[in-house]
Amino acid sequence: MYIENISGPSDVKKLNIQEMQALAAEMRTALIKRASVHGGHCGPNFGFVEATIALHYVFNSPADKLVFDVSHQTYPHKMLTGRAEAYLNEEKYDSISGYSEPSESEHDHFIIGHTSTSVSLATGLAKGRDVLGKKENVIAIIGDGSLSGGEAFEGLNVAGELQSNFIIVVNDNQMSIAENHGGLYEGLRKLRETDGKAQDNFFRALNLDYIYVKDGNNIEQLIAAFQKVKDINHPIVVHINTLKGKGYKPAEANKENWHWHSPFNLETGESPAGGGEDYGTIIAEHLLEKMKTDKSLVCVAAGVPTSYGFTEARRKQAGKQFVDCGIAEEQAVAMVSGMAKAGAHAVFSTHSTFMQRTYDQLQQDLCVNNNPATILVSWGSVSSMTDVTHTCWYDIPLMANIPNMVYLAPTTCEEYLAMVDWSIEQNEHPVAIRIPMNVVHTDEPVAEGYSDLNKFRVDKKGNGVAIIGLGNEFFEAQKAAELLQSKGINATIINPRYITGLDLELLESLKKDHRLVVTMEDGLIDGGFGEKVARFYGTSDMKVIVRGATKEFADRYNPSEFRATMRMNAEQIVEDVINLL
Amino acid sequence: MYIENISGPSDVKKLNIQEMQALAAEMRTALIKRASVHGGHCGPNFGFVEATIALHYVFNSPADKLVFDVSHQTYPHKMLTGRAEAYLNEEKYDSISGYSEPSESEHDHFIIGHTSTSVSLATGLAKGRDVLGKKENVIAIIGDGSLSGGEAFEGLNVAGELQSNFIIVVNDNQMSIAENHGGLYEGLRKLRETDGKAQDNFFRALNLDYIYVKDGNNIEQLIAAFQKVKDINHPIVVHINTLKGKGYKPAEANKENWHWHSPFNLETGESPAGGGEDYGTIIAEHLLEKMKTDKSLVCVAAGVPTSYGFTEARRKQAGKQFVDCGIAEEQAVAMVSGMAKAGAHAVFSTHSTFMQRTYDQLQQDLCVNNNPATILVSWGSVSSMTDVTHTCWYDIPLMANIPNMVYLAPTTCEEYLAMVDWSIEQNEHPVAIRIPMNVVHTDEPVAEGYSDLNKFRVDKKGNGVAIIGLGNEFFEAQKAAELLQSKGINATIINPRYITGLDLELLESLKKDHRLVVTMEDGLIDGGFGEKVARFYGTSDMKVIVRGATKEFADRYNPSEFRATMRMNAEQIVEDVINLL
Repeated sequence: MYIENISGPSDVKKLNIQEMQALAAEMRTALIKRASVHGGHCGPNFGFVEATIALHYVFNSPADKLVFDVSHQTYPHKMLTGRAEAYLNEEKYDSISGYSEPSESEHDHFIIGHTSTSVSLATGLAKGRDVLGKKENVIAIIGDGSLSGGEAFEGLNVAGELQSNFIIVVNDNQMSIAENHGGLYEGLRKLRETDGKAQDNFFRALNLDYIYVKDGNNIEQLIAAFQKVKDINHPIVVHINTLKGKGYKPAEANKENWHWHSPFNLETGESPAGGGEDYGTIIAEHLLEKMKTDKSLVCVAAGVPTSYGFTEARRKQAGKQFVDCGIAEEQAVAMVSGMAKAGAHAVFSTHSTFMQRTYDQLQQDLCVNNNPATILVSWGSVSSMTDVTHTCWYDIPLMANIPNMVYLAPTTCEEYLAMVDWSIEQNEHPVAIRIPMNVVHTDEPVAEGYSDLNKFRVDKKGNGVAIIGLGNEFFEAQKAAELLQSKGINATIINPRYITGLDLELLESLKKDHRLVVTMEDGLIDGGFGEKVARFYGTSDMKVIVRGATKEFADRYNPSEFRATMRMNAEQIVEDVINLL
Repeated sequence: MYIENISGPSDVKKLNIQEMQALAAEMRTALIKRASVHGGHCGPNFGFVEATIALHYVFNSPADKLVFDVSHQTYPHKMLTGRAEAYLNEEKYDSISGYSEPSESEHDHFIIGHTSTSVSLATGLAKGRDVLGKKENVIAIIGDGSLSGGEAFEGLNVAGELQSNFIIVVNDNQMSIAENHGGLYEGLRKLRETDGKAQDNFFRALNLDYIYVKDGNNIEQLIAAFQKVKDINHPIVVHINTLKGKGYKPAEANKENWHWHSPFNLETGESPAGGGEDYGTIIAEHLLEKMKTDKSLVCVAAGVPTSYGFTEARRKQAGKQFVDCGIAEEQAVAMVSGMAKAGAHAVFSTHSTFMQRTYDQLQQDLCVNNNPATILVSWGSVSSMTDVTHTCWYDIPLMANIPNMVYLAPTTCEEYLAMVDWSIEQNEHPVAIRIPMNVVHTDEPVAEGYSDLNKFRVDKKGNGVAIIGLGNEFFEAQKAAELLQSKGINATIINPRYITGLDLELLESLKKDHRLVVTMEDGLIDGGFGEKVARFYGTSDMKVIVRGATKEFADRYNPSEFRATMRMNAEQIVEDVINLL
């Protein structure tokens, strides 16, 4: 085994080509095995093994600096930089993060998890190097669909003006998470088909030098290319053509499904069936049904169409009524605003953490114009993704403080679908809906519509204490109320439904026979919903407890422990209520 | 006079080339005259007169839809679509907005003020048209530096996949607000020099069809080009080469200064000298002085270098220690984060309203990585820009709820410079500083440093009522305290200095001898600073009044009237305090 003897890049440099090929095979075997047990990013890593070996063979990390875009393709890099144990030893699988992480290794320079940032960050390293009079190579690695994001373009454009060493490795695996979208990828296809010689080279058009590597999984070709550009005195793109998922047949065959994968059976590639209903399936089927009678209904995605259930089969079914912009959230939001202006019904969905990438478009392109598009925010919760770059807690402060936006928080499946229907059919407001985390059904009738803005729903009228449980927290609020009941306190329970405004009349009326209001939200409380309630009652005698996540970055945490730390659980809230009364 | 007979595009269509040329001359004269009296965007409009006439001659607005990027070049468009009075009659100069505005005319489709959005918005109009089975032309106009922004690229990339009519007019005036930056503009230069024939055509690389118009101020050439692309069945770029500032010599000679200009003397082009000191000059001179001894200090701009005083002369003086990324705020934030990581001292500044364009980079690229770069936020105030797209109220909710960020609010010039010095020299935190609106000097010593996070400064110790005046509002807080003193109330006055955290010890101690805390901030209170204070006191008997702007879009308002509506003035606060006590 070669891999066991690699404690850092210097050990890679001792190998010859055949040994490196053997090393690549070992690494790939370990990666596939680990993925089958642990889950994680598959395709991006399987395809980038040889390039990673070649980079470490040619360059001198950490003096030379490698910056990986998204950094979900850094598993091979971690294996070669002292962290192989985490891929070889099942007990250590959880010892490292799934992204580059400076606290783990001097070979990692940034914590990166969002797309399209590597070139921009690396231009900063290069400029810093230049003013400090240093000479190392700065290498930005980008690909896997990241080129469609605006920040990547802004970075390439500025890179085109640098007058010093700067190397951009474009890992062209012909895929985004789903298939690539956009005219750029047509340009890249032509470059691949002409061995890099096509006219109208996107990179040269940006004043960047360029070379092409035909087989980006061939170590010899890669080493030759990297040696050619090492210590170069100007910016250059090394365009390498790799096979996403390489080495594992199911991942080569279905690149989208195998971009990230949960644990699976190595032989069959199959995972245990998911438990029960999921909102992706429910909403996609619902929207497909509506599309049949409403030909102006168009669903838009930004690289992660499955955030609302638009699998490849469903995208085909939707036909022209589905648009994937690629990883380009700004475009997606502006586009649905434009569609709504044109009189069509437009829906865009992505995960809470990626909504962050399009604040200005939500505010300016959509809300200033007050166009009636629908935005579905998935995974908004402290209990969804837990990598620090992917936490989904920030959407409430981000989106709910934008004027004109109507941001809704459904609690059940029926309420969610009723809100979606209302939003698509109305033409007064830009509407965002925070998709609940768990599918809960109700038999109770849901509102016919939501045009009477900011009307909270009183689930149970009590006195003394009122608990406002926003969205996902509504059932925890009910639970807290039950516990209080057992202690003789008849709490009022409220489903506020609207995140973007307060039911002033209801809140005012609570002053008569309540002394305490508790707000519960499944997200950051700084700038969030509860603070508005606290402000409202600031001039009165009403006491207010605001619960949710407090401002901090948390990484790979246990959600239920996290909730307990934040005192978000019913039992804790009951304890705090009783202490305060 | 032709212009007086133009009540809409149909009147343009009746003219022959010579008459249109005469019309252009009249329009330019009126534009220059109005600018001299009223101020406004000069260069972008002076250069786009002929193109606007040709667009309205060839296309059938409003059925055919023109979408203008930034829309600061829509003055000629407004003159031809029923709004000429506002440019001809001095008394009507204020009757229209400086941007496209659907409430003024059916020829305007969006309220647009931020850069790089037109292509994306127009893709939505095109997609909406297609699913609704309509056939009109959709024309996106972009240029004047806007192409460097990520959203524009995301839009062009998606446009490259459209399979229906879509026309992109690239107004290449060789300028951003300052000179253009980035490799793209090198590519455009080559296209200009080869009459559009250069290899490596940026637009063709994105799968877009392309034609070039050599003289973008020649009506005949423009009409021929637009007629050629009208009703085309696929996306095409019409690249037109225009002269920014055309027709007014000072504006042609100094394009940056004449992008936007305050009222001026028509003969000389000179404006009355500005009154007194400005923070642009103060901070730029301060930073230039520091650069002499700190060669690693680099200042970065995103198209508006004068947001911190970096005029052309000062940029030259800074040399390699100044980088203008062009209009590309995402790149700018990532780049300073990278520079800080490399060990350099990096500063980025732009206006509050443009910080909105880079939330995710502030959060992910900068704050998750906790890199010690400095961000200077200019014009953060309800009393700065008042166009709805340019209001500068949102930066506190946006930036102060990001973990790891230290956002500071200085009150005086000396405090501001002390914070800048501390920020540049420390290496623990990403730091943002909200530049005060008015230059106020103090003789009092300012803190030596700000590492002891979230320590508020008590300006005067009183009892009963405490007023926390954040940043710009500090002097209004002092004024309120003086008024209260005259009524026998000895209020405590606090300069919190930190926007991103509360001085819990101080707030706790106020409970002893205060019954009311007032917070005052010069920005949106939804998600802002004061709500955190209200949350803190929610479980106590302390009453809290939170003052600032409430959530709404306001357009072309009078700042002092606005402040009065929001009850932000000292007299009003005193009234409310007395009512509550």
